[in-house]
Amino acid sequence: MQKSHTVGNISLAIAKKMAQAAEDKAIKIKVPVVISLVDCGANTLLVQRMDNAFITSCDISLNKAWTACCLKQPTHEINQVVQPGQSLYGLQLSNQQRIVIFGGGFPVIENGQVIGAVGVSGGTVEQDMEIARAALDCFNAN
Amino acid sequence: MQKSHTVGNISLAIAKKMAQAAEDKAIKIKVPVVISLVDCGANTLLVQRMDNAFITSCDISLNKAWTACCLKQPTHEINQVVQPGQSLYGLQLSNQQRIVIFGGGFPVIENGQVIGAVGVSGGTVEQDMEIARAALDCFNAN
Amino acid sequence: MQKSHTVGNISLAIAKKMAQAAEDKAIKIKVPVVISLVDCGANTLLVQRMDNAFITSCDISLNKAWTACCLKQPTHEINQVVQPGQSLYGLQLSNQQRIVIFGGGFPVIENGQVIGAVGVSGGTVEQDMEIARAALDCFNAN
Amino acid sequence: MQKSHTVGNISLAIAKKMAQAAEDKAIKIKVPVVISLVDCGANTLLVQRMDNAFITSCDISLNKAWTACCLKQPTHEINQVVQPGQSLYGLQLSNQQRIVIFGGGFPVIENGQVIGAVGVSGGTVEQDMEIARAALDCFNAN
Repeated sequence: MQKSHTVGNISLAIAKKMAQAAEDKAIKIKVPVVISLVDCGANTLLVQRMDNAFITSCDISLNKAWTACCLKQPTHEINQVVQPGQSLYGLQLSNQQRIVIFGGGFPVIENGQVIGAVGVSGGTVEQDMEIARAALDCFNAN
Repeated sequence: MQKSHTVGNISLAIAKKMAQAAEDKAIKIKVPVVISLVDCGANTLLVQRMDNAFITSCDISLNKAWTACCLKQPTHEINQVVQPGQSLYGLQLSNQQRIVIFGGGFPVIENGQVIGAVGVSGGTVEQDMEIARAALDCFNAN
Repeated sequence: MQKSHTVGNISLAIAKKMAQAAEDKAIKIKVPVVISLVDCGANTLLVQRMDNAFITSCDISLNKAWTACCLKQPTHEINQVVQPGQSLYGLQLSNQQRIVIFGGGFPVIENGQVIGAVGVSGGTVEQDMEIARAALDCFNAN
Repeated sequence: MQKSHTVGNISLAIAKKMAQAAEDKAIKIKVPVVISLVDCGANTLLVQRMDNAFITSCDISLNKAWTACCLKQPTHEINQVVQPGQSLYGLQLSNQQRIVIFGGGFPVIENGQVIGAVGVSGGTVEQDMEIARAALDCFNAN
């Protein structure tokens, strides 16, 4: 009997580098944001709020990361199916409303496994996604 | 004066068999899910998360079962009336948002009485319903 | 740079066996209980409420497992330090009161790593601990 | 009429340096912890969970910082007055239980003003305090 299986878990070291890459991108496009990362169990690993970023973005960025980790997909991909009349309308009310249904959250994938996730909030959805992707690029480049 | 009435209540023994039947179906159609059952009082009886199933599916499957027991009907039957503009729009916000409004939750009925309920989450709505029905088939076959 | 590290994660297969061993013990000592297990990320893996067990024991057993996983120690070891006047008095109020400070929760350890945890609730603290230990014995025997 | 007053507010730049100083100390004394900082409005600025730190320490470290900022004093100074029988017994139940009543949280003070706060959780109270003080030393040295 298989009593356990191994899972990969993202390190704080790379998380800090990813957050810095995201912050660099945010400074470049002039949008103060909050950058959050969770580990493979969807538990908080890192939260960084840039000066002047919205207070509300702490909750949103962290829950974007949480959602992307739990559902193993980017948050913008959930957006369509939870609209009124669509198959999963109401999903956004589950799990104490932690599920974020707009873009800016991405799983961090290594060897086909979700080892954590990143979430960004503070700009437009497109800006948040661009900044989060800078964090993913950093992960892949290291 | 009738001081009480008897209610049927699902046993853990059959709940475990139903969960196994659901898991067998889930393995067959290759969808890791969470299977939950509640008793006749809509209280938690069993939750089983298959390896690699979404973390978020614990809450959703349990609340599907809870909803099906409380409302004495499958959760997919609630879907239409809670859409914007429909008669019960807003019902999904009641009861601390425990009411799930998409398919995968079914009451367990014996002699015309709701004695418990089953909920499945992790796949598409159709997959969740198929897996939950395997649990009901098991109940009826025993 | 180390981007990730591997962690062991308990399987549903052994969790079900452990729950059965705990249930067998509970039947033997005639105490209906709820048996819960969480995975290495402290997320719900299994909950089983025996017929006639307290409804409240679902929350308590699950949070015992959650606490033992998060704090990497049995819940009864936390009991002393959170008493009034002791060093961690008040710890029990943190984390939305999920931290259980009496016995019945134990981490599941493999190769020195916490790969999950088990929690039992429904009897006296001593009975809960005895039943939970039956689950651990089962883990070690497999 | 004075329509406003200025407040000092801690920057993310120094917060990151303080977190690094705290992490260096934590590594030195071999205790994985979570380090959190809040700004002058007691809102989250930074959270960093070291690999293998307790999941529960995210909530506790952040609330230590929150408490130290809100009450403008270190959390260990609150410990005595909230014991059973003392003058502020029950304070720990206010504010959705966010008030932490044991050591590890300190306000960050500049020119007599509280401009933010730091909180550390994961070790003993003494270790948490020592690590948090390393963050304050870093603030004063810059």
